[in-house]
Amino acid sequence: MIKVGIIGSTGYAGAEIVRILLNHPEAEIVWYGSRSYVDQKFASVFGNFTEIVDAKCLDDNIEELSKEADVVFTATPQGYCATIVNDVVLSNTKIIDLSADFRLKDVSVYEKWYKIEHKSPQYIDEAVYGLCEVNRDKIKNARILANPGCFTTCSILTIYPLAKEHLIDMDSIIVDAKSGTSGAGRGAKLPNLFCEVNESIKAYGVATHRHTPEIEEQLCYASGEDVVIDFTPHLVPMNRGILATAYAKVKDGVTSDDIRAAYNKYYENEYFVRVLEDGVLPETKWVEGSNFLDVNFKLNPRTNRVIMMGAIDNLVKGAAGQAVQNMNIMFGLPENMGLKLVPMFP
Amino acid sequence: MIKVGIIGSTGYAGAEIVRILLNHPEAEIVWYGSRSYVDQKFASVFGNFTEIVDAKCLDDNIEELSKEADVVFTATPQGYCATIVNDVVLSNTKIIDLSADFRLKDVSVYEKWYKIEHKSPQYIDEAVYGLCEVNRDKIKNARILANPGCFTTCSILTIYPLAKEHLIDMDSIIVDAKSGTSGAGRGAKLPNLFCEVNESIKAYGVATHRHTPEIEEQLCYASGEDVVIDFTPHLVPMNRGILATAYAKVKDGVTSDDIRAAYNKYYENEYFVRVLEDGVLPETKWVEGSNFLDVNFKLNPRTNRVIMMGAIDNLVKGAAGQAVQNMNIMFGLPENMGLKLVPMFP
Amino acid sequence: MIKVGIIGSTGYAGAEIVRILLNHPEAEIVWYGSRSYVDQKFASVFGNFTEIVDAKCLDDNIEELSKEADVVFTATPQGYCATIVNDVVLSNTKIIDLSADFRLKDVSVYEKWYKIEHKSPQYIDEAVYGLCEVNRDKIKNARILANPGCFTTCSILTIYPLAKEHLIDMDSIIVDAKSGTSGAGRGAKLPNLFCEVNESIKAYGVATHRHTPEIEEQLCYASGEDVVIDFTPHLVPMNRGILATAYAKVKDGVTSDDIRAAYNKYYENEYFVRVLEDGVLPETKWVEGSNFLDVNFKLNPRTNRVIMMGAIDNLVKGAAGQAVQNMNIMFGLPENMGLKLVPMFP
Amino acid sequence: MIKVGIIGSTGYAGAEIVRILLNHPEAEIVWYGSRSYVDQKFASVFGNFTEIVDAKCLDDNIEELSKEADVVFTATPQGYCATIVNDVVLSNTKIIDLSADFRLKDVSVYEKWYKIEHKSPQYIDEAVYGLCEVNRDKIKNARILANPGCFTTCSILTIYPLAKEHLIDMDSIIVDAKSGTSGAGRGAKLPNLFCEVNESIKAYGVATHRHTPEIEEQLCYASGEDVVIDFTPHLVPMNRGILATAYAKVKDGVTSDDIRAAYNKYYENEYFVRVLEDGVLPETKWVEGSNFLDVNFKLNPRTNRVIMMGAIDNLVKGAAGQAVQNMNIMFGLPENMGLKLVPMFP
Repeated sequence: MIKVGIIGSTGYAGAEIVRILLNHPEAEIVWYGSRSYVDQKFASVFGNFTEIVDAKCLDDNIEELSKEADVVFTATPQGYCATIVNDVVLSNTKIIDLSADFRLKDVSVYEKWYKIEHKSPQYIDEAVYGLCEVNRDKIKNARILANPGCFTTCSILTIYPLAKEHLIDMDSIIVDAKSGTSGAGRGAKLPNLFCEVNESIKAYGVATHRHTPEIEEQLCYASGEDVVIDFTPHLVPMNRGILATAYAKVKDGVTSDDIRAAYNKYYENEYFVRVLEDGVLPETKWVEGSNFLDVNFKLNPRTNRVIMMGAIDNLVKGAAGQAVQNMNIMFGLPENMGLKLVPMFP
Repeated sequence: MIKVGIIGSTGYAGAEIVRILLNHPEAEIVWYGSRSYVDQKFASVFGNFTEIVDAKCLDDNIEELSKEADVVFTATPQGYCATIVNDVVLSNTKIIDLSADFRLKDVSVYEKWYKIEHKSPQYIDEAVYGLCEVNRDKIKNARILANPGCFTTCSILTIYPLAKEHLIDMDSIIVDAKSGTSGAGRGAKLPNLFCEVNESIKAYGVATHRHTPEIEEQLCYASGEDVVIDFTPHLVPMNRGILATAYAKVKDGVTSDDIRAAYNKYYENEYFVRVLEDGVLPETKWVEGSNFLDVNFKLNPRTNRVIMMGAIDNLVKGAAGQAVQNMNIMFGLPENMGLKLVPMFP
Repeated sequence: MIKVGIIGSTGYAGAEIVRILLNHPEAEIVWYGSRSYVDQKFASVFGNFTEIVDAKCLDDNIEELSKEADVVFTATPQGYCATIVNDVVLSNTKIIDLSADFRLKDVSVYEKWYKIEHKSPQYIDEAVYGLCEVNRDKIKNARILANPGCFTTCSILTIYPLAKEHLIDMDSIIVDAKSGTSGAGRGAKLPNLFCEVNESIKAYGVATHRHTPEIEEQLCYASGEDVVIDFTPHLVPMNRGILATAYAKVKDGVTSDDIRAAYNKYYENEYFVRVLEDGVLPETKWVEGSNFLDVNFKLNPRTNRVIMMGAIDNLVKGAAGQAVQNMNIMFGLPENMGLKLVPMFP
Repeated sequence: MIKVGIIGSTGYAGAEIVRILLNHPEAEIVWYGSRSYVDQKFASVFGNFTEIVDAKCLDDNIEELSKEADVVFTATPQGYCATIVNDVVLSNTKIIDLSADFRLKDVSVYEKWYKIEHKSPQYIDEAVYGLCEVNRDKIKNARILANPGCFTTCSILTIYPLAKEHLIDMDSIIVDAKSGTSGAGRGAKLPNLFCEVNESIKAYGVATHRHTPEIEEQLCYASGEDVVIDFTPHLVPMNRGILATAYAKVKDGVTSDDIRAAYNKYYENEYFVRVLEDGVLPETKWVEGSNFLDVNFKLNPRTNRVIMMGAIDNLVKGAAGQAVQNMNIMFGLPENMGLKLVPMFP
């Protein structure tokens, strides 16, 4: 039984880790960390866990926690994880970090986009970027696992096969992404009030969103080329879900069959990636509550652009679910253990 | 392994049975019945099941189906189940009927409220009303199980302990219920369009809703008194969830402690009923996706009325979940097998 | 041209006064008061007013404001208006208070339910309760106008004709009300976040909501009897709208025709009250954005209770619209001037 | 007083024309056409008009109607308007067609994208494309006015100044658009049910949506270049609103100031187009219920692409509002008469 500690368990992503692990046959949560709710019952913060979780929230004492837990999930604001990692901690436990602290290999890029000084850059190199379908082998032995961002997971996996197979011009990529509101977190901020979000859609972070360099870096690895993209996130009046609509010029002669073959090559055997049938377009509802990515594309012969679409649940495949998938890989368990969540509809 | 057939698998309740049974360790679906989609892939009707369910929809051939299945769920319009039940079918299989055909013991009441002639009244007597927490013992040996309605499950369980313990005047009961839109089914009707439902709330079926006599009959059994109630359902712009707000005069001298004691007496050991702590009120969100009923109350000393509140997911505890709970009881399995669904939030 | 000042113009109700008055032919806003946004452009706080309102927000200087404005709307938290009223102010301007400070005639009731010391009880007597359809004559000469609460406007007007005509038992009244989320205000609080409200319904303030004594007091005036009611508000995942579902025992022999006659007697000539045709039930969507109250009822012969239903837009008839209606009356203008807002659908 | 006839008055766009014209000082509706609801009260189809509109729905008798009305709005399915236009009708009345029948100048393009034979191509030439801010002069004398589509209005106006001023590469344009569900009409179709749309987002009509050639044609006129674009609409779980996010490569040396100057050049004096301040991004909520287009942009120096964003209410500026704006121009009235609708928030 894997003993799990969670720091930041009372955010939406933290609580989603709890929801998933409660039905995981080989994991047990031993530490519900939450600085905001110390000594309060976890189930009083999230009523869905009433009579299911009896534990109280604990402080973020990483020294003690790292001794009790085989793995620690940090579902915390950017910059926090980097302050708690050290050799002692890492000799005791593995870290799966849901923040951005260890996702970017170039610390200057991190500091520029996040406007935070990185407190432990010495661990960036060994950290493994936990995009399971791409980095599975490296993940197995990771001590520090950088769980990808929600937009990035969806965007990268949607484009990856075409980048890897050199079917598209890497300087032509645009990702127009749409996210449910849970992506904005549980902070009590005016723009996230029901009446502000409901019945509206808007773009935000245009040309400056911090998931941009993460997408670029991974697509660079895939294609072997430098990649600079336009990435525009939008806020959608729904709780969960991300839809990424990505555009790119296809290289001369590339056909729909070529593109489909590329998706199949990389995803046919992937449990969590569903390449939809021709003509069936991803909808976030069809993956809600699950760890699936649904993906499909349309080649526009009038423009020679391919429109790629991918849908995930931002809290599952975009956060907690992928984190548990990474845990499974790191501990030698079947990758989908505890994650065969059937999407809920409606 | 219990072999399960579903008639009406492509309605919202039918598809929810599928969602639940896919993670049930002792059940296997052998027949996805759907007259509307015969020969079409079930996953093409409900995209959430892509790559999870490969089966195609089949016709409703009850003779054949009853031979292949140990139990048949009928998630069909009122009146249909009564047309397929006969001695041969019942010698082959058990029936769990999610319609109202076998819920009311007085066929004339059924025919009056539903305006349908009952096609097999001879089976009404032996049918068991499947309100698990109340009728558990009878359910064990049922051949025909009448799965309670969504509003009724929520309303009855919310009031039951007070009725049973004679704490309230049974002629003073009012149930003001609120339901998500999935309760209206998947039929393509103008009043159920997004733009008609969204951003609005309304009552419907006032003083005439067909769940009324079902609630009355069961509260009559509980209290030993004739019961006539006011029941008013409302349509809420959300997918899932029922909240029942019930009002009744308390008998002289009844205190909050008495009421709490009654709830605890009947529900303390019930896995699926959560009596919330004093001051914590049920919200449908906290039970979404799960088989739980959350219940609580407030005694108003100014009026000597108790306000009872109960919340369920209408598709789970109000339909598919309770149906599976009944199946578990009928087949001697642990009652919560396959049903330890953690509510999903947000 | 009536010169209007608004204190609290950057709350939802305050901004709604602005929206309405911008199309009012005889009113002009001279003071956008908002302590939180002093010196900021009003249109930067509410983007809908971009290029429509150029003014900046001002502080709440009541002395100066009262000299510049013929009428001051206070859309402020409970207790504030009572601190600014004095003889000098009232000699300069009229006050239309959207808070509860002057609604209840018994100051001890106010202080008990609101848990606030009333700072100017000497003005309570002269203040007029601005339920236009009921108190029209008194409103004409008011200096201090207590604009009714949103739940109360809807609840009282829904029940009023039956109370006034003695058709119902006044000790049997229950009001089960449902409100959109704008009723909770624009404060950045966790329970009002999109993800907390969306896809859920809950009751709140059960047996303790502060609109209770206000409803009771007015129904007492109407019926000539002491009235104590059960009032239960619920939060609905929509922006605007209140639906009140009210229950009462009818007196012996009262028929549907009697009830309809009562509604017609009081409302047939009321522009803002629409008694719907038999069988047509109020929906909040049909009044959205307008100053209408839609009302109807159903008599249940099985229980001898009447179910009364009323729907308003909480920000219009429940706040800003009724406030402007009161202004029109106070200044001798046609009551619906600037208020012939057609409800918006969908 | 302009006498107005409406064919298709019981669709969402038709009813929105009614809502707007009810407060128009110089127009009066004399004919509520609706084949589906002949002889039924218009207000029984749309409850918001209760006690406001007394008229009954009439059949679509264009001969008679054209004699009674100075202008006829056709809010009908594609192909219908082309069947009713003829010389006699046009000698009697003006036509403002909200369908696509007269938007495209090349009938073969129309027939290819709409898969309908055009029944009166002889009138295409004289028909005027009613994009008011661009074609104002031609509109004045139009007999047949082709009211632009909702996506097209938003997309074209968002891009127009940059196309006109040759600031962008016209072969690099991508429009990723998001629409509320009222755009799908009031037909009772399964994909438009509340539970199917709510809590989900999806693309549709990818690379094949019929608004594509309309956008291309108008941008061609603006730029003087052939234009082929990628246009991807998405369905958003909200009633109203369109947000167009458009991408294009800027020409060498083009700066943010150049772009802002272009927007100001064309829109500074336009009542209905609001160029937002730097850093303020359009949100559909801020224009809801009004005839405004809110527009802004961001230049991404990393990619040399400009991201243009425009927001409208699809039923107002995208349909009924622009139609009335066109009527005003055609009849020599102030362009914003009856259209100074303040957006409603929240």
